[in-house]
This record gives sequence, C-alpha cells and structure tokens, in this order.
Amino acid sequence: MTAKTYRRVVVAARPSGEPKESDFRIETLPIPEPGPKEVLVRAIYLSLDPYMRGRLRDVPSYAPPVGIGEVMVGGVVGEVVKSYHPAFKAGEFVEGRMGWQEYAVVEPSELRKVDPALAPISTANGVLGMPGLTAYFGLFSVAEPKPGETVAISAASGAVGQVAGQLAKIMGCRAVGIAGGQAKCDFVQRELGFDACVDYKAGDLDAALRAACPAGIDVYFENVGGPVSDAVFRQLNMFARIAACGSVSQANNETPAQGPRLLGLFTGRRVRLQGFIVSDFRDHNPAALRRLGQWVKSGRIKYREDIVDGIERAPAAFIGLLRGENFGKLQVRLGPEA
Amino acid sequence: MTAKTYRRVVVAARPSGEPKESDFRIETLPIPEPGPKEVLVRAIYLSLDPYMRGRLRDVPSYAPPVGIGEVMVGGVVGEVVKSYHPAFKAGEFVEGRMGWQEYAVVEPSELRKVDPALAPISTANGVLGMPGLTAYFGLFSVAEPKPGETVAISAASGAVGQVAGQLAKIMGCRAVGIAGGQAKCDFVQRELGFDACVDYKAGDLDAALRAACPAGIDVYFENVGGPVSDAVFRQLNMFARIAACGSVSQANNETPAQGPRLLGLFTGRRVRLQGFIVSDFRDHNPAALRRLGQWVKSGRIKYREDIVDGIERAPAAFIGLLRGENFGKLQVRLGPEA
Repeated sequence: MTAKTYRRVVVAARPSGEPKESDFRIETLPIPEPGPKEVLVRAIYLSLDPYMRGRLRDVPSYAPPVGIGEVMVGGVVGEVVKSYHPAFKAGEFVEGRMGWQEYAVVEPSELRKVDPALAPISTANGVLGMPGLTAYFGLFSVAEPKPGETVAISAASGAVGQVAGQLAKIMGCRAVGIAGGQAKCDFVQRELGFDACVDYKAGDLDAALRAACPAGIDVYFENVGGPVSDAVFRQLNMFARIAACGSVSQANNETPAQGPRLLGLFTGRRVRLQGFIVSDFRDHNPAALRRLGQWVKSGRIKYREDIVDGIERAPAAFIGLLRGENFGKLQVRLGPEA
Repeated sequence: MTAKTYRRVVVAARPSGEPKESDFRIETLPIPEPGPKEVLVRAIYLSLDPYMRGRLRDVPSYAPPVGIGEVMVGGVVGEVVKSYHPAFKAGEFVEGRMGWQEYAVVEPSELRKVDPALAPISTANGVLGMPGLTAYFGLFSVAEPKPGETVAISAASGAVGQVAGQLAKIMGCRAVGIAGGQAKCDFVQRELGFDACVDYKAGDLDAALRAACPAGIDVYFENVGGPVSDAVFRQLNMFARIAACGSVSQANNETPAQGPRLLGLFTGRRVRLQGFIVSDFRDHNPAALRRLGQWVKSGRIKYREDIVDGIERAPAAFIGLLRGENFGKLQVRLGPEA
C-alpha cells in the first residue's frame, strides 16, 4: 500500500428528476488511519443500485437521505489493508456499506467476509449479495410461488431479476422475463434459462405477454413500475401475488406519476401485493447466502455483471442505470483485485 | 297466499357509466309452482350492494354477468310459502340469492334458514349476512390488525364499514371511520363507537386524517377507492395492511380512472394489499355468523339499515347507493314480514 490519498464521491446537490453528473462531486483526501479495533479497507467493487435514487431525496423513507456534502451511500467489496481488530487481517476480502469511496475506515461489525474460493469476489455485490438476497426473499418469502405456476419478472436481465427468474426455475415454475431489447431478452432466455423473455420495447406488450404466458401470470416480481407493470397486471390470474421490490421506471419522479387505478382489478382477482425491503429478512441472510452460494458454485445459477472502471465514472454509470442502459449487475471497479 | 302474480326486475340494457332506471325493466308474471324437492319463497327484503354494478358489465370477472332480459341478481330474505322439501316448511324465514323478484322457486341447497328470535330478519342481508361476513373476513383473515393498531375504514356508515369498525374495536384497535357528511360521521362515532370519523366532504382530508390518526394508519379497510383512498395511503405506517374489499367510487367507470401510482410508496413502507371476495371464506361462514350473532344479540355490535319500500323503487335506490346516498345497509322491502 503506497497510496497516500484517495478519492470519494459526495452529493453536491439534490437532483430534481433525472440526476446530473453535477449533482455529484469528487473529492481527494488523505487516506485515514484506523483507530483501535477498526479496519482500513481498500475498495475494489462499488455496487450501483436503483435504491440509491431514493437516498438522494429528502423525504421520509425507510432510510435517511444522504446529506449534501456527505459521501454517497453504497455497498462495496474490498480488501482489508490494515486491521486493528483480531477478527480481520490484511489481505482478506470483505463486503460492507462503505459508500462511493476508494478507501474507508470501518467498524468490523459492519463487514462480512467474502470467500474468493467460492466465486469471484464481485459477486458479493450481486448474486451473492444484496441483489441476490432481494431476489431470494422476494420470491420465497413474499411472492411464494408454487411449482407449475407462471412467474413474470421485470428488469429480468438486471441484478435482482436475473436471480429471481432462475430461482423460479429451480422451484419448478415457468419463468417469463421482461427486458428492454433483443440482446437482453436473448441472454435471459438462452443463457439464464428462462422459459421466455418479452422485449417491452418491441411493440404490443399485451399481446407478447399473452403469448409468453398462455396460462396467465400467477406471480409477478416487480422491479420497474409504470406501463410495463400495468401490462402485467392485466394478465394476472385469480389469487396472483406481487412482490413489489421496486419501480426503477419511476425512480426519478419527484411526485407519483399517474396511472390506471388498480384496486378494482386487485379486488376482483384477489391479488396480494406486498412491498418489501431486503433488510426485513436479514436474520435469514446466512441461510440464504449458503444456498445461493451452492447454486452459483454448481453452475445452477448463472449471472452477468456490467463493470465500469474508475470512481470518476460512477455518477454517469448510475444515471445510466436509472435509464436501463446497463446489462447485468452494474458495478464500478475502483481498483485492482490484488 | 292469495297473490297470483308477482313482479321482478330484469336487466333491459347494459349501463354505460352510471346506470339509469331505464337500464332495468319491471315484469309481471304468474307465481310459479315449485317442482319436486323445491321451495317457493316470498321475498321480503332485497339487499342492494355495490358488487351488483360489476354484474351489469360484460367483462371477465369472478362471477358471470347478468344477461339482458335476465332477472337482476341479489340476496333476499323471505318466507317459505310452499315447500316440497322435508327440510323446509311454510312460514320459515330463509335467505338466498333469489334476485330482484317478489317470488322465486329455489333449490333448498341454496337457502340458509334465518332465526327471527336472534335478530330482525332483515339483518340476514346485513350484519348477519354477506356484508357482515365481508367485514369479518376482511378484517380478521385479510387485514389482520393487532390490538392497539389504528384501523381506518372507508364507507364507515355503510353495510360493511359499520361492522368492520366495530370488529376493530372489539379486538382492541383504534377505529377511524371515513364517511360523507356530518350526519354519517356523528352516527359512526356516537352510535357505533368508533374513536373518530372523518368527513371526506368537509375539506382538507389529509389534515383531518392526520388529526384522527396521530399514530398513523396500520390497517385500511378499503371500500371506496379513488382520492379518498389516496389520502389514506399517504398516512400508512410501515408494514401497513390493506383489505381491498371494493371501490364503490369507481364502480361506474368503464375503464380504470387515472390516479397516483402507488407501487413506490407500497414498496418503501412494505405495504401488503390484498383483494378478497367474501365467498373465498365460505367454509368459515357458520363460525363467523355464530360470533356475529352473539355480538348483535348482546348489543356489542350495532347496525343501521336504510329501507326503501317496493320493488319498483329498487333501480333508483341502487343508483343512489353508487352515489353514496344511502345511510346504512340499503334494502328494499318487497312485502310485509307476515
């Protein structure tokens, strides 16, 4: 470790609508020294995720907003470079919520060790991290599909969607993805093994969904919101369940957009819609990560990452994420693995 | 029994938007003779309910539409006047889905006996019938409030809402009604014993709801839809539950109205919304009716009925129901009790 300074991204202004690069500012500071029982971590992979848009907004939510001038929040996989805590030693890989910065001093209680023998360490931000857990709990604990049912998944090539659909296949369901563009759909169907994937940019979404879901839709793993979801709702079967994970298409709206009122449809079809946040299930993380790890190791669950290099590109990559421009789990590589 | 003819109401035309009286037609026919094992019933109370608007619409739903020229569907409390079935005898009171008509020949399997010693027989269309069961299952089996939680109920003076709020009180919740006009609100709060009732016609609904629900809303028993429900949603607490019973304010819309998209709010607050139909729980009807009957008999549950006389007034009363003009459980008295 020879570096003396590091870079970090702070929030410069609260975005209104779509964030601009100027809403973020890069700062350079001296690398800090850990205190007693603390650990200094060099960040390697920064995870970029849709929930971050919510943290830029100063309204009551399940988590406080990031303050102006504060480091932008985010999950990071990195390497311990200096440890004053007996449970961690230099050279070990860890995952934690260190934010958009190249180095950070961290309380060890906030860190999870990452095993580089199980899978590439970047997966601790993806299939073996928060997005994979979101898919796992959203499907198994919220939506609760039964074998033989049809499960529709929006943002199917994204970090959460790609795992949710493969988990649906593992439990014997028909998995139908929805994604933007032919390349993503081909990947979802051919590489990930979904039964079908519908391109929502290709034209008549209602007809395409009907064709892909001849027995209707029993479970919807909701990642996008907006008109795509409206089309799914029209195909819901009686007693359908919706795991409301997020609405990336609505993330930049300052006030709720207008859409068709759903309660009448949901009553008549006895739909159950449940919002959830991955941390609601955190007590079950170890068991879920153990199972996901086995499936990744055995090749039963595949994954795709979209990796951008350099912290200076994080703001633009994040803006692109909200537009659906990434292809797979979006991460920023802040430094080399070793 | 001296009458030789009876009147019935058939559907003359499918309404578009708000029904008109001319969408219905009154016919006079000879009173039919029951066949073997059948029963002839003289109707006394016809129940008018919001779900009936859906049966006038020729779209796929949980129940088939009423055909043009067919008798309008509905629940009726009546008296057996002739029986060729050993389980029923003349003079007994029964409840069944006989439709909008003064006499009907019925299969006994479709009838439920009504005990006139327990409560006035009209209650078999209300608190001790479908609306009471809807409140019971919607609250206890769908919304699942816990003692101490705040339960909001829209259409609080209506057939379902008045029971739902009193059941919430029985289980130790704070019950907050929403109703249209001061008279209904006074009744809900003073006669039925809700903790508060908000008049949605009186002005700033958001502020009134905040004042009535200082600890937020944990459970919403949804009967109306539209902007009233939007205001409730803004006050929902984390992990709130919504029993989506119906949306009477939207009942006349031919296509869904536009409203604010809710999925983002529902995700962040982990809201669970569940649509339901009372018949989903029919196996539990006997136990639920036993409990409701005890509470009614002991005076623990009060109720209010809004009774209109004469089958010829049924169409206008039904149109008024969809406008919120009734005050209490709406019924049409088709003939004397004895």
